[in-house]
This record gives sequence, structure tokens and C-alpha cells, in this order.
Amino acid sequence: MHFRKTLFLISILFVVELAAGQSRKIINVPDILGYQTLKCDFHMHTVFSDGTVWPTIRVEEAWREGLDAISITDHIEYRPHSKDIISGHNRSFEIAEPKAENLNVLLIQAAEITRGMPPGHLNALFIRNANLLDREDVNDALKEAREQGAFILWNHPGWKSQQPDTTLWWEEHSELLKNDLLHGIEVFNSRSYYPEALDWANEKKLTMFCNTDVHGPIGMSFELENSHRPMTLVFAKSRTLGGIKEALFNRRTAVYFDNTLMGEPDFLEPLFFASLEYGDSPLRLKNEETKYVQIKNNSDIDYELEMVQPGIGFDCQESVLLKAHHITTIELNGNSDEVIGMKELNVYYRVKNMFVSSEENLVVTFSFRNY
Amino acid sequence: MHFRKTLFLISILFVVELAAGQSRKIINVPDILGYQTLKCDFHMHTVFSDGTVWPTIRVEEAWREGLDAISITDHIEYRPHSKDIISGHNRSFEIAEPKAENLNVLLIQAAEITRGMPPGHLNALFIRNANLLDREDVNDALKEAREQGAFILWNHPGWKSQQPDTTLWWEEHSELLKNDLLHGIEVFNSRSYYPEALDWANEKKLTMFCNTDVHGPIGMSFELENSHRPMTLVFAKSRTLGGIKEALFNRRTAVYFDNTLMGEPDFLEPLFFASLEYGDSPLRLKNEETKYVQIKNNSDIDYELEMVQPGIGFDCQESVLLKAHHITTIELNGNSDEVIGMKELNVYYRVKNMFVSSEENLVVTFSFRNY
Amino acid sequence: MHFRKTLFLISILFVVELAAGQSRKIINVPDILGYQTLKCDFHMHTVFSDGTVWPTIRVEEAWREGLDAISITDHIEYRPHSKDIISGHNRSFEIAEPKAENLNVLLIQAAEITRGMPPGHLNALFIRNANLLDREDVNDALKEAREQGAFILWNHPGWKSQQPDTTLWWEEHSELLKNDLLHGIEVFNSRSYYPEALDWANEKKLTMFCNTDVHGPIGMSFELENSHRPMTLVFAKSRTLGGIKEALFNRRTAVYFDNTLMGEPDFLEPLFFASLEYGDSPLRLKNEETKYVQIKNNSDIDYELEMVQPGIGFDCQESVLLKAHHITTIELNGNSDEVIGMKELNVYYRVKNMFVSSEENLVVTFSFRNY
Amino acid sequence: MHFRKTLFLISILFVVELAAGQSRKIINVPDILGYQTLKCDFHMHTVFSDGTVWPTIRVEEAWREGLDAISITDHIEYRPHSKDIISGHNRSFEIAEPKAENLNVLLIQAAEITRGMPPGHLNALFIRNANLLDREDVNDALKEAREQGAFILWNHPGWKSQQPDTTLWWEEHSELLKNDLLHGIEVFNSRSYYPEALDWANEKKLTMFCNTDVHGPIGMSFELENSHRPMTLVFAKSRTLGGIKEALFNRRTAVYFDNTLMGEPDFLEPLFFASLEYGDSPLRLKNEETKYVQIKNNSDIDYELEMVQPGIGFDCQESVLLKAHHITTIELNGNSDEVIGMKELNVYYRVKNMFVSSEENLVVTFSFRNY
Repeated sequence: MHFRKTLFLISILFVVELAAGQSRKIINVPDILGYQTLKCDFHMHTVFSDGTVWPTIRVEEAWREGLDAISITDHIEYRPHSKDIISGHNRSFEIAEPKAENLNVLLIQAAEITRGMPPGHLNALFIRNANLLDREDVNDALKEAREQGAFILWNHPGWKSQQPDTTLWWEEHSELLKNDLLHGIEVFNSRSYYPEALDWANEKKLTMFCNTDVHGPIGMSFELENSHRPMTLVFAKSRTLGGIKEALFNRRTAVYFDNTLMGEPDFLEPLFFASLEYGDSPLRLKNEETKYVQIKNNSDIDYELEMVQPGIGFDCQESVLLKAHHITTIELNGNSDEVIGMKELNVYYRVKNMFVSSEENLVVTFSFRNY
Repeated sequence: MHFRKTLFLISILFVVELAAGQSRKIINVPDILGYQTLKCDFHMHTVFSDGTVWPTIRVEEAWREGLDAISITDHIEYRPHSKDIISGHNRSFEIAEPKAENLNVLLIQAAEITRGMPPGHLNALFIRNANLLDREDVNDALKEAREQGAFILWNHPGWKSQQPDTTLWWEEHSELLKNDLLHGIEVFNSRSYYPEALDWANEKKLTMFCNTDVHGPIGMSFELENSHRPMTLVFAKSRTLGGIKEALFNRRTAVYFDNTLMGEPDFLEPLFFASLEYGDSPLRLKNEETKYVQIKNNSDIDYELEMVQPGIGFDCQESVLLKAHHITTIELNGNSDEVIGMKELNVYYRVKNMFVSSEENLVVTFSFRNY
Repeated sequence: MHFRKTLFLISILFVVELAAGQSRKIINVPDILGYQTLKCDFHMHTVFSDGTVWPTIRVEEAWREGLDAISITDHIEYRPHSKDIISGHNRSFEIAEPKAENLNVLLIQAAEITRGMPPGHLNALFIRNANLLDREDVNDALKEAREQGAFILWNHPGWKSQQPDTTLWWEEHSELLKNDLLHGIEVFNSRSYYPEALDWANEKKLTMFCNTDVHGPIGMSFELENSHRPMTLVFAKSRTLGGIKEALFNRRTAVYFDNTLMGEPDFLEPLFFASLEYGDSPLRLKNEETKYVQIKNNSDIDYELEMVQPGIGFDCQESVLLKAHHITTIELNGNSDEVIGMKELNVYYRVKNMFVSSEENLVVTFSFRNY
Repeated sequence: MHFRKTLFLISILFVVELAAGQSRKIINVPDILGYQTLKCDFHMHTVFSDGTVWPTIRVEEAWREGLDAISITDHIEYRPHSKDIISGHNRSFEIAEPKAENLNVLLIQAAEITRGMPPGHLNALFIRNANLLDREDVNDALKEAREQGAFILWNHPGWKSQQPDTTLWWEEHSELLKNDLLHGIEVFNSRSYYPEALDWANEKKLTMFCNTDVHGPIGMSFELENSHRPMTLVFAKSRTLGGIKEALFNRRTAVYFDNTLMGEPDFLEPLFFASLEYGDSPLRLKNEETKYVQIKNNSDIDYELEMVQPGIGFDCQESVLLKAHHITTIELNGNSDEVIGMKELNVYYRVKNMFVSSEENLVVTFSFRNY
């Protein structure tokens, strides 16, 4: 029969190009405190909701861009392509999973519960069956997710379409929080930063997220050539689904977009110092002398430093740019005889691109041995 | 009823981002001979065959990358996503068309007739109903396309999966040509150049094509930041579907990939000179003197010149790079008294990145006025 | 004699590479109001004062970077290399001049009169003999310059080494101004912007400057690959020394650094609109309809627009980026029936990267024909 | 006295910007065989011969570009700026030395002995007094250098100005070699590669060099933004002048320009493998199965591999690009039952951008554990 012959011919003609000729970026953000720093994106769409790419593309994009883990979060309630695409809510995960296994990208099953405000849009991560989340009452949907063991986060809390004037925390969110139906919040989504969310995460003990919410091909929304897609850094005990879940429930994350990092000082400070290398031989700085310290920044982050207060007995540059993958010279100028008596020379800098709250930068102290 | 309320909420929540915040590249390749030089791609896929993007993405990509016209050529015979995606062969065109109209990208209805070798894969452009091309016999399919007015081209003639050892022209292709069922050929497809196809196009009077055959997001296959996707240049009387069709049937195209152009000298030579600007005041070069000509290259193409033969009475640089969007200096050194007698100084260069056949570059003559 | 033979051999060995294999950038900033927009840098140093390059390098750098005119302004009073380099104050000009002629870069003879504050450092442009400026009293030096026909500008008025706390206008500067010994001021120098200088230029009718004050190779101080060196735009009647002098004395300049322009609205507004192209066929916008205008930006400047006030009967994007050498879509949405009655649709944008004073941006009005 | 007051004012006005706000690139080429891989340039000029920059610039450029060591090699016999610059042949070294010390760049005292062919131009490295090399007879100059302990190399042996048609080895060079007056040769100079020199270095046991011979600012001659200046890799026991001298006399160098490396296989092979990281858990590949190996390339070099011969019992990609600072997947496809019996899977690749002679690439063998 002719049809079968055609099919056969085709099967040998279309050899799948499994990531051949492609390569994966390396994201240089260091491990800290004994944890692995995993690079993750927990919010994205495919043609199975209102996205415009096939699910395997999400895995390939993640592999190329150097991510460790992703979740595809197609909307339960909004599927504009349903005239052409017929399938249940688990289908995008099923299609993406074999590719994720091949490329060793961790794929977390998930869905976006999509409602008006309150409570807005919420991602349920680590679910087992998305079809069961298709419920009329949003609380029923969230409870079902929770029974499946889900971690639940509030997406783009200050999205202008839902909160046009002020970014408000609603009574309903307090309820969810109380009932263990809300665990995290997006501080950054796509191209928008929500300062209120950063402060709520600190006050209400929510886990911070930074996700792309990408609908089209990632390269159409983000400049990838000389930058990186927004991502949630997860400080995990292991590079496994379980490792990520444990870290999320224990709030060990940070926000990373453009050249900016946000999070708790307990994570940002070790991240800063683990990025850097410099010698520790004593400087032996004297009055009216100058000494140089060469600091190597092994990370992808340009750290922008501004002096908080001068050292005792010496001056230092007001502002320093520790450029990524470069060595930068810090110059110490002795300006009083006091300096000879100092065992350590402490320099206090504000890191202008690291935020611990909506209004505060991380402050770091370099301690250079003097004698 | 709750369901309607949900739908209503959603309809106001999801404001479509119609190309907002996006911008379109300008491809600088000049018009020639009274024709408009249209930038086109006549071969690409979507989720409706074995591609991985939604049809609207092909239009958005084309708009951003500065193309004038595209055709989506989903396979008739190969639809690996048919378990999830149910729809006829015209559906990808229908979905893409409104977006194309909004963005003023010309969209040509088309399909890929997909068979073993011979005759391999063929694109039928300017069809009206792709469903009618779904025929057991390839000749029936091509005849149907032709009856719809199609322009038919042979895709990737040297594709290794079909012609592993040598790129052959088959008896069947001569038949197609004789029967007006073959009008063009891909000289370049995706990342592969087929030198045989360039020579066949010249000998057998086929129209030359350079297409991407893109299956995934365009940015995953091609470096777009500092380069451009492969494209067919069409020299058309007007920027309309009819204008393109007329130009294709009259073989007014050129091949443009990386920094390379291929085509007939009748098109490449005017393209070269229309890219450049330089003064024409007389040089008045004498023996043992040096004069400079500053040449401005307004195109995106770096022209790489190598001298073919020296001028009479003067020397010139052996090799010159006329860098895109830069001014380059050509230096003429008088080396005999003969030079004073020359009305024009002719310099003969081979353009190393312009090909008129698989073995010949375009040769150009600069004539600088001398007196 | 052996020595002569060696010399002879050398003279044929060292063929000078006169800008061969090099190319000149094109700076795309449009001409306006019938003037040529010349790209100029009026402040730079060589080994003949405290710079670190040979004078010819300044000309080559200018040619490559697309400048029309420069002046080398070696310090009269500060020559730290004088142990090794012996020559008068005109020497750097003499050495650079033949190269400038060859490459068609306009070279203005100049010098920097270098004193403590007040009056600080002043450049004298269009002088004829720098040696005569070597005078004990700064007023004598400036008067001598003026007698030679000089245009005099105050350099880096807010330089921290001279004005550490506040950028002050001194009594002495009022004196100079009154005595026709001060005509211009640097609003931008090297990497520093002096907002006070921008306002003084407006109030006191001084000519605005933006200069590099470069001491080392230009590429060590400025990122040239994807950006441009700071420059003064001069709106001149002709591309000649005289044309520049006339324009400077008549205050027809603008400041251009990074992606920022500063100057009088009389120049910035035409510069903005001369950069753009868009059709003027009537939009015929109705209530609840959307129309698109595609705006082509032919300049090197990314214009960053922010809406000042909404149009009558329609909405428009709050913020628009008119990316350099791209086409950007502006979207107009009819929101009341009033729109049908409008002959023109006026959109008011603030150009966030164009400054007319230290506190005000240029405001522009797009008038799109409606019927 | 007024003059002294002026001088005093100036001394506080001109605070030297000692590499402040600047940063140093990191060149990622690994150490091998217990040696440090030092990045060096042994050929460059300043205003003290026919260069166009001040000597300190050579040190700053080297520091920024990540070099470990340089030598300034001003011509003894050719000083075109001597009308303005008066000083002995050691002066450029004296001026550069303090800056080199501050920035921790190793500075080797040197000079270029500059004659017609034969013997052409020769660099004498590690000299102590350049003035003594100013001798009429070239042999006297070289003997003097040798008595000072110099290492001597032949520069640009195929320079067209001296060897216009063929690159010849002259009788005189054999003499120099015999008399211990020639130890190395430039295989690459500025933008030119001399294949004969690579083969001579192998045959005659000369040390290979790759130098810039830079005359102007380095950024005017080489694209530094996304590439690197040409350099000689020196495999040294220590990062000291003595360490370099020992390595040069023992021929432990390699040539590195653009994306190309040249040298002895004893150095290139360890350099290749020290650049890479990949797991060594057994693949357990079976017939008709596919396994992936992810290879991380930590170096700045894109390695371009082409298969030399297929493995036993499996297929592998014909060509692989191991992109710098990326992870690339190699795919192994079992194609016979033989594969189960293999303890190791050996893949043989030619490294197309590593040369061991003018006609041979380095060939490498990947041995992946199978069981």
C-alpha cells in the first residue's frame, strides 16, 4: 500500500537533531553555604495554553540557557488554541518530559490557576495531575493542588491588568497564607519588579521568585546574547526535584534579573564573597603610601560598590565596579599614622545592585590584613 | 453562571501585546534596476507539521528581522503532532494571516510536498487550497498545485538524508521541468550550500532560492544579533504578492546568507555599485604621487575585494575590505609617467563574497576619473 | 659608508601604512535647518603635554571614529615629559597637520591654558601661535589668544580637583565674560556631566561643549565598539575651519554623549524629527479601533519617549523606545467617538534622553493626519 | 616667584589615575604539565622608535588584556621621532618599569636589531644595556646582546618588504644558529602567519613566537572586545623573568592568535584536554541505542573537531564545535553488537584549529569508559 511506503520513507528521512550542534551556556553564580545554587524558572507557557511554542522548546531553551530546573505552568482556565489543540492539562508535561530526561534538565509538573483579583494567578508546583485542578471554586482548586503536595506561589502580584493603581495585599491572601495555600510570591515577573512583593516576602515569610512567564520563544522576549533570562536562584541540598522542593518550602531562594540580585542578606552576602578571589598577604600600609589589592570576580555579575564609610587611617575609592570575569584593582591610600596600628583594614561598601529590601542594599565589609 | 464570569474576567485580563515594545530591523541591501529588492523566506514550518512554533510566530519573526514576505510551507505528508493538533492543511495560513496583515508582512499560501528521492521535497507557492495537494501520486499533487497557479521549487537538493554521496539531478526532475512542474531550486537551505544547484539554476534557467527551512524559533537556529537569517532577495516591480510571483517566474532573485551573495552578474553587479558612494572629481594622479578615494558602503554587506590585474600607470591595494556602513580608503600610487595620459583609472577587483557560479566570483571595475 | 647603507635599506623597508586596511565609522546624526551637523572634539592631549600618544594618533582616531573636526589642546604650563621631549608649543599641531590633510579631518590649532581655580583650565581654539600664550598672568595669556582670534571655553567647570564641593561660577568668570575672554563651556568632559554648566550656558549665552579630554589612546577610555566617543555637534554653514568658527561664536552646538543629547530646543527638536521617517496617509481612526504607525529611526540614537498627556479621543502607549536603525510601531486606540472629528491626532511625548536644561527634557508633538 | 607657584598648583591638580576604574581581562588558557601557562608578547614599539604611544601605555595595555609579560623592543637603528625625542636606547624600558612593577606585569628589557635581509630584524630579549647594541656590524650587535645573556629571535621572517616572493632561510641564519646567536623565530607577527617558520621551528629546534609588533595603540590594530591580541604562550616553572627565560631557551612555547593554536603536540594535546571537563561514569552503550556525553569547555578557545575515523561498534558526529565556556553534547549511537564488548569507546578527532606543523592538525582521542 502506497501510504505505508510513504510513511516508511519519511521515518528514515527525518533524523531528529537531538541538540546536535548546540551548546549550553554556563551561568557563573557560585554555590554557597554547602548548598548548590540551582538556576530555575518556575513560570512559562506553551501552545497548550496561551503560549506559542511546543513544550519541548521550553526544555531546549532551558538547556541552552544553562538552567537546572523549570516548570511549565499552562493555564487551567485559559486555552485560546483549544479549537486546534485538544488534550488534557497534563499533556504539555508529558510531551516535554522525555526531552528533559535526555538533556538532564529537571522538569517540575505544574499549572497556573488563573483567576481575577483576588486572589489573581497562582502557580501550583510539584502537582501530580493537573486535570483535577480544573474546579469552579478557586479554593477547591488550591486545596486539590495542596493535597497533591503542591508548593503554591502568587504570580505577578502587581500586574497592572489586575491591580492598576496600587499593589495591594488582599484579605483573601491572608486567608490563603493561614490555610497553608500560599508559600511564595513573584518579586519579579517577565520585565516587572514588584517592590511590595520583596517586602511582603520578608515580613510574611514567603519564598521569593523571579520567573519569566514566557509565552513566545524566549529569545523574542529577552536579550540572551550578552545577558541572561530572569531566574530564581535556589540553594538546594541536591540537584533533584526533592532538593528543589525542600529548598522552596524552606525559603532558600534569591531573585536574579539583569545585573540585579535580591534576597535575604544571609544568602546575598555569601554569594558576593564566593564570587571573589583576592590574596591575603598583609598590606603593611603606611601613612602617605599607596597599596593595591587585585580582586578577581569569577561570577557573571558586575558588582557596583559605593563606599559607606571611610576606613581608619586610610582612604579608598568612593566607587568601584568589580566587573564580571575581570580583575579590578582597589587602591588604599594611607592618610594618617593611625594606619600602622591597624591589624586589619576594613572597607565598608554598599552593593548597589544587591537588594535585601525594597529600600536597602546589601552592605559588605572587606577586611584586608595589614600586619 | 460561573463559567461565563470566568471567561469574561479573562477576556479583560489578557490584553494582547501586539508587537508593542518591539522593533523591526532594517536590512540594508539596495534596490536595483528600477526594482524593489524584497527580502523573503519561502520555506518554514509550524506546529501544524513538524515545526515547534505557532504560525503567528513566523510572522512576528519575519517582521522583526526585516523581511518583506514569507511563506509557511508545512508538510502535507508529515504531521507528527497530529495526536494533539487536529486541523486541515490550510490552518497554519489562516491563523497567521491576520497578524501578517497587521504587521504588513506579505504572506504567501504554500505547502511542502514531501517525498523520497526522486523527486524529494518540493514547495508549492501561491496555492489556494493545500488540502487538495494531499494525493498519493506526487505528480497528481504537483499538477493540482500547478492548476492552482503554483510556483514550484525543489528544496535542499543535496540533502544528505536523500542524496548521501553525490548531489544528483534525476531523470524525474527533467520530466518535471519539461512539464512546467518545476521552476526553482534552493541553492542554500538552512546552513547548507549546494554548489550544484547554483550551476543548475544557471544552466536550466531555474530561479535561485535561499531559505531557512526553520522548524523551531528562528533565534535557536540562526545568530541574529550581529548577522541575519538566510534569505532570498527578490527584485520585484512592486511590494505585493503579484509582484513577487511575477519576479519568481522571471528568475529575478539572488541568494543571501552570512556575508555571501550568489546570483546572476546582471543583478549582483548593480547590487554592488548601488551599495557604494564615492566622489567623481578627477584625481589628477601623477607618477610617484599617491591619491586617496574614500568609498562609503551603505549596505550591510562587507565586500571583500582582491585585485584581478593592476591598472595602467599606477598601483593599488592588492586586497580591500569595504566594511559595511563604513568609509574605506583606496590608495592609488602612480608608478609610471603613462598615468598622466589616462583619462580614467580602471581598477579590476574580484569580489570574493559574491558568486556568479560555483567556481566564479563577480568581477567589478572601478573607473575613477583622472582628468 | 655603512651607516648610509643601513639608512637606505631602512627607508625602503618601512613603507608607511597610511590608513590602509582601516575604515571610518559613519555617525548617523542628521543635518538640520540647512546646516551641516559636524561631529567635533575640541579637547585632547598628546605626548607633547601630559598625554600618552603621538599627535598623528589623534587624527587617525578621529578619522576612524567618524569625526569631522578636532583640536589638540596640549597644556601650555604642564609638560611632564619635557625631560625626553623637547619642542615648542606648536609642535603637536605641526606633526598632526599633514595627516589631517590626507584624511580630510579638520584640525584646529589650539592650546589649554592651565591654571588653578579661578579661572581653572581654558581652551583657546583657532590660535596661530601657541608659544605666545606662555605668560605668567592668565589674563595676559587669554588676551594674547583673543588677539590671535581665539574662541575661549572653560573646561570641566565642576572638576572635583578644583571644585571639590560645589560647582561655583566665580567673579573672575564674570570678568572674563564681560571682557570677551570667555565664549563657551564644557557641559560634559570625559565621563562627567556638569548640570550647572548646562544652565549657565542657557542663561549666560555661552556655547555648549562636550569633549573627551582624552590623554591616552581613545579606546582605553571609551567603549567604541557599540557606542561612540563624547562629542560636540556643531551646526555649521560649511565643513570648513571658518564654518566651525562662525558656528561656535553663534552658539550653534549640542552635547552628545552615550545615548544623551543636550542643547537648545531650537536644535534638539529638528534633530529629533530629522532622525525619523513615517508615512502621512490619514489614519481614519474610529472609536474602539486600533491603528498602527510604523516609525523608522535612521539615526544612531535610541529615542526614549514617555507620554506627557493623552490624545483627544484615543489612547497611545505610555512609553515607546524608538530604537536606532529600527522601525517601531506606535499603536493608537480610539476610545471615544470624539476621535472621528479630529483632523489631526496629536501625541505629546517627553524625550527622556534629550535635555534642554538640567531639569527639563525636550517635549515633542507627533501630529498624525486622521482625515 | 610666580613660576613655582604655578608648578605647585599643578602638582595638586593632576592626581594620577593609576589604573583606577579599569579592569583586567582574564585569559582562560589552562596550565599544563606542572607549568604555568604565561601569556606574553615579546615585540612592540613606542615613541622612542617608530611607535606612537608612550612606554607606560604598553604596560597598561598588557595589564588590561591579561598578559603576564611583555618586552618593549624599540629599534636601535630606526628612530624617526628623534627630532623631538632625545634619549638613549634604554629610556623606554626605564619609563615603563615602575608602572610594570605597580601592575605586576613582568617587563623584559629588549631591543630590535634592525637590518636588511639577511639577516633581517632580530629581537634581543633579556639584555641589560641597549645602548651597547648600537654597532655597525650586525654580528657585533648580536654578539654584544649574547654577551649580555640575550635570547635572540628572528622577527617576521616572511615579511613581504624583505622577502617579497618566497620566504627563504639564508646561509646567514644557519651561521647565526651555529654560533648560538639565534634561538627563536616568529611564526606569527601582527596579522601574518609564516608557515615556513612553523616547520623551521620544528626542524631546527627554534622556539616559536607569536607577537603583535604593535606600533600604535593596541586597540587600533586588533579587535579586543570579543577576541584577544596575538600572544606567545610560555610554559614556565614560575611567573618570573627567570622562569620565562628558562622556558624560552628550552623551547616551551606555543603560538596563539585568533582562535588558532600552533605548537608541538607535547604541549597542544595537554592544553586541549586541560581545557575540558566531562564525567567518566560508564556509558553502557548497546547496539541501536544512543548515549550523550556533555563536555564542558572552560577555556576561551572554540575547539573545532572533525572525525578522523569512526569508532568500533558505534557512530559519532562527523564534526563537533566545543564552544568556549559552553557545554556541548557528543552523541554516541551504537551500530553493532560489537559495542557491548568494548571496555572503552575511542573517538578520534582532528582539531582543525590546532596545528603541529604547516600541514598537520593535532589529532586527539577521547576514551569514554563503556563498562
